[in-house]
Amino acid sequence: MSGLLLAVDAGGTNTRAVALTRDGECRGAGRGASGNPTASGPVVALASIVGACRAALQGAGGTVGDVEGVVVAMAGAEGLLPPAEIAAGLGFRGPAGRVEKVGDLLGMYFSGAVEADGVALIAGTGSVAGRITGGALARVVGGSGWLLGDGGSGFWAGVRVARAVVADLDGTGEPTALTDGVLADLGLVRGGPVREGRSVVLHELTDALYALPPVALARFAPLAVAAAPTDHVAAELLRRAGDVLAHLLRTVRAGDGPLVAGGSFWARGILGSGAPASALLAEVLDGADLRPADDGLLGAAVLALRRETEVGPALHARARESLARVRLSGA
Amino acid sequence: MSGLLLAVDAGGTNTRAVALTRDGECRGAGRGASGNPTASGPVVALASIVGACRAALQGAGGTVGDVEGVVVAMAGAEGLLPPAEIAAGLGFRGPAGRVEKVGDLLGMYFSGAVEADGVALIAGTGSVAGRITGGALARVVGGSGWLLGDGGSGFWAGVRVARAVVADLDGTGEPTALTDGVLADLGLVRGGPVREGRSVVLHELTDALYALPPVALARFAPLAVAAAPTDHVAAELLRRAGDVLAHLLRTVRAGDGPLVAGGSFWARGILGSGAPASALLAEVLDGADLRPADDGLLGAAVLALRRETEVGPALHARARESLARVRLSGA
Repeated sequence: MSGLLLAVDAGGTNTRAVALTRDGECRGAGRGASGNPTASGPVVALASIVGACRAALQGAGGTVGDVEGVVVAMAGAEGLLPPAEIAAGLGFRGPAGRVEKVGDLLGMYFSGAVEADGVALIAGTGSVAGRITGGALARVVGGSGWLLGDGGSGFWAGVRVARAVVADLDGTGEPTALTDGVLADLGLVRGGPVREGRSVVLHELTDALYALPPVALARFAPLAVAAAPTDHVAAELLRRAGDVLAHLLRTVRAGDGPLVAGGSFWARGILGSGAPASALLAEVLDGADLRPADDGLLGAAVLALRRETEVGPALHARARESLARVRLSGA
Repeated sequence: MSGLLLAVDAGGTNTRAVALTRDGECRGAGRGASGNPTASGPVVALASIVGACRAALQGAGGTVGDVEGVVVAMAGAEGLLPPAEIAAGLGFRGPAGRVEKVGDLLGMYFSGAVEADGVALIAGTGSVAGRITGGALARVVGGSGWLLGDGGSGFWAGVRVARAVVADLDGTGEPTALTDGVLADLGLVRGGPVREGRSVVLHELTDALYALPPVALARFAPLAVAAAPTDHVAAELLRRAGDVLAHLLRTVRAGDGPLVAGGSFWARGILGSGAPASALLAEVLDGADLRPADDGLLGAAVLALRRETEVGPALHARARESLARVRLSGA
């Protein structure tokens, strides 16, 4: 069973790995907890990656001695958990350069495209876009995190839902259906007495929201998606999210090569209701060679294959289909 | 020396107290560390308040036995450090109702006005506005903290300075002079290599900014004020800050009674360059009975006096002038 490749998507919540042959057949898959050292620390991240890889190898009937190359897709974390530590954790004995770490944007791109030049966009809890040139990341925009960037992401939308509710309750904003949604989520009830010139429920709301880690406000983004068809405030919020993502895409010249886009907020927030609410985004997408992608696992597999052979549409499709089969089987 | 009143401005950074007679003569003043229980915990806050009051009484040649009433102005913190605990800490033996805690907005208002009806605005690190009716806070808008509100404040401006610099460096925003200012503040140098599609200085910048507590980004607000005369991005940012504050004031119907406004960002950011950059704000202020105020100490004194006697312009002026004299003497 020699000649195996390992592809890993090391996410903040969980890690997936797949063992595949050089002709793109996925033979085994594995899962683990958070594989992102920024999110969970290098010790947990390495253990998750190693555990997922071992399960994938077991499924393929192989061992680490059969592995010829490893590609790990991971968001940020350039300095943490270098490839040599991943190699050591796996017990990988081949040449050091055969264990590689790539950004999540590159993983996402090759999950959806085989072309060496194009654009990738992720809008999940955060948001980031990049231009891929010659198979490598040439330019990245956005992705500066919840406080400084991440415009048009799930966090961006979630914090704006919370702000819209605060503004509704103190009268500086429009009334919105989002208010009942957020209050219900937090077990609060509208109305009630006023204290120091402010409704008590507004005091309770801000106390409850500041008790959460800021990034947790992303959980309110789906409320905007649900309310948008009938609520002006929610619809406007989603329209602006689309505008911000359109600006990212324009900055990296989407339209030149395929545009691979994914992430939970992209799929269920921006495209969730069919056509995007943003006219700017609709314009950017009009005529673009848009390709969907779920995550970076297939892309990591494609990047591993690209080092062995030319990856054309046929090999990409074979890897995609066989990966879908091993995923269906529970990995 | 009987018949003394104590007025306290319990701020997040420091606490000031003054001991005054019923005819508005300030006889002694004292200082302490943070008197806000949200900022520093109830133990430190109480010790700061008590220490400042004792120093003020000592300056007045009196003791707590001479005190007939206490008013403490404090931001937020409704639940923490109730008046009874302040009374116990001071050793106050009079009727419980003679120790009172009021919001910082009410303290600020009576620092600048004697009328029972009007509007107060604070734009410091945070921002909040309120309508005062019959001498009490009737309605408060804004003031929901750095993540959910505080539009047009020093934090609001500071985080937007940081975002403008990130956007300048990744090319999604306009070039701005703010970039050199923020990089110099953090000891970083523009230019240098690119890693993973992004300049290394941008990686360093975001690492440095996320290492700060979010509220610390308020320290970049003065960069916008300094750059605004010659930098479009900075000027636009200050204009929008003024728009947001104008919206707060409109919501509480400024123009109906005096408008008392203060706070570091109001004084040095919004009005710093003379006329406000926001046409909306200029419109709200046009014809308004605008009164400046530095903080809530004089207002706390006025609120203490109001319980004894009618406070008209003459008594207000006497208290203001004598407070300025004891402050000049080092309190």
